[in-house]
Amino acid sequence: MGELTVLGLGPGAPEKRTAEVQHALETADLIVGYTAYVDPLRAELPEKRFFTSGMMKEIDRCRLALEAASEGKNVVLVSSGDAGVYGMASPVLELAPQFPEVQIRILPGITAALSGAALLGAPLGHDFAVISLSDRLTPWEEITRRAELLAEAGMPIVIYNPGSHSRRGYLKEICGILLEKLPADTPCGMARNIGREGESAEILTLAELAQREPDMFTTVFIGDRTTRMLNGRMVTPRGYDV
Amino acid sequence: MGELTVLGLGPGAPEKRTAEVQHALETADLIVGYTAYVDPLRAELPEKRFFTSGMMKEIDRCRLALEAASEGKNVVLVSSGDAGVYGMASPVLELAPQFPEVQIRILPGITAALSGAALLGAPLGHDFAVISLSDRLTPWEEITRRAELLAEAGMPIVIYNPGSHSRRGYLKEICGILLEKLPADTPCGMARNIGREGESAEILTLAELAQREPDMFTTVFIGDRTTRMLNGRMVTPRGYDV
Repeated sequence: MGELTVLGLGPGAPEKRTAEVQHALETADLIVGYTAYVDPLRAELPEKRFFTSGMMKEIDRCRLALEAASEGKNVVLVSSGDAGVYGMASPVLELAPQFPEVQIRILPGITAALSGAALLGAPLGHDFAVISLSDRLTPWEEITRRAELLAEAGMPIVIYNPGSHSRRGYLKEICGILLEKLPADTPCGMARNIGREGESAEILTLAELAQREPDMFTTVFIGDRTTRMLNGRMVTPRGYDV
Repeated sequence: MGELTVLGLGPGAPEKRTAEVQHALETADLIVGYTAYVDPLRAELPEKRFFTSGMMKEIDRCRLALEAASEGKNVVLVSSGDAGVYGMASPVLELAPQFPEVQIRILPGITAALSGAALLGAPLGHDFAVISLSDRLTPWEEITRRAELLAEAGMPIVIYNPGSHSRRGYLKEICGILLEKLPADTPCGMARNIGREGESAEILTLAELAQREPDMFTTVFIGDRTTRMLNGRMVTPRGYDV
């Protein structure tokens, strides 16, 4: 009986991988994933078998990984960050009933909300929400409605997929919605290429963020009314009397 | 000049620690943290110096860690899970302006939202929110208002600190609020002692969850209208056509 391990690599740098993820990669018969995330592993694990393909091929990759596992192979399916957050864990589990002979385990990884937060300071010290601005799989009206309710709920928001070449102006529209509920000087942050070459972090106000066009390698953090800029870092207090 | 590293151990098991966290622990002059999280490290790292103290002593520990770092020591301050999520990163950064000579770096870890999700399936495959039911530092009215708005926003909710000996009935009240917006059979999950001895995961409906009194070692997951139970796992689809 085969086993499929769906795992998150974390932000990219090997030192941000967990030990169990590292072990799963090293003992796999086949490593499957999106080309851009998996190609950097080839140099590290030269003796391994890999299957990679491009964007929009997610479901094909899940199927291929399940099929290889059903043939008795020990297969690893790779997501960047955490496999459970906008990653491959949920489509694999949706397909799983078609492959009852495959054992599936999910290994967590450091998602960009956590790695980006650490780079910026501590923007998620209390309650928070995570949303994606990609409208490839979610209607845009649903996304804007969520942003509105979250601003009302008064908690920091982490934004994945804030923009791309084909999705310009999305973040601007969201910032416009948030500016109706939050002060213009609400601290915000952008973390780019986290754990990769060219890593950068920037702290700016919500009004300034509304003028930006971040790309798909950027994770955006929006503070709430308690968030402060302290020594160049973005900090949401938990509420301790310090 | 001293350095203070604020890090997240992950859920407990060493194999869920990142390599950089492991390295920081091994090279520290002093490891500081809450007794229950840090005591298991003593056997692993017998040659290290430790300082531990109990609950409610969080700010004292932050100060002690900053003071030791300002004396030139290489200090590690430990949170369980991720240091940025209900952890020590934000109080340390609030105190940091009093210790300008200390370099502070934050290393992310696997928070219970991620490790618990992996245990249950993929409940956080799309947008989600994280809230704590502890009213020690947050007014209860604020917590219930957030729960209401999040249910309206239609995204899965992860609940930290769902209850304790002194906080009984809190989760029941939150479930009551959610049941006004969500079907009684909405899939929910409880992950307990994640990455520790006695680890367990349970999937149940929202109506069933409302009858439970989880303890402080439990993380609770509430699905949204898209969340399903599949092969005994809790899955929130990302929206792919599988």
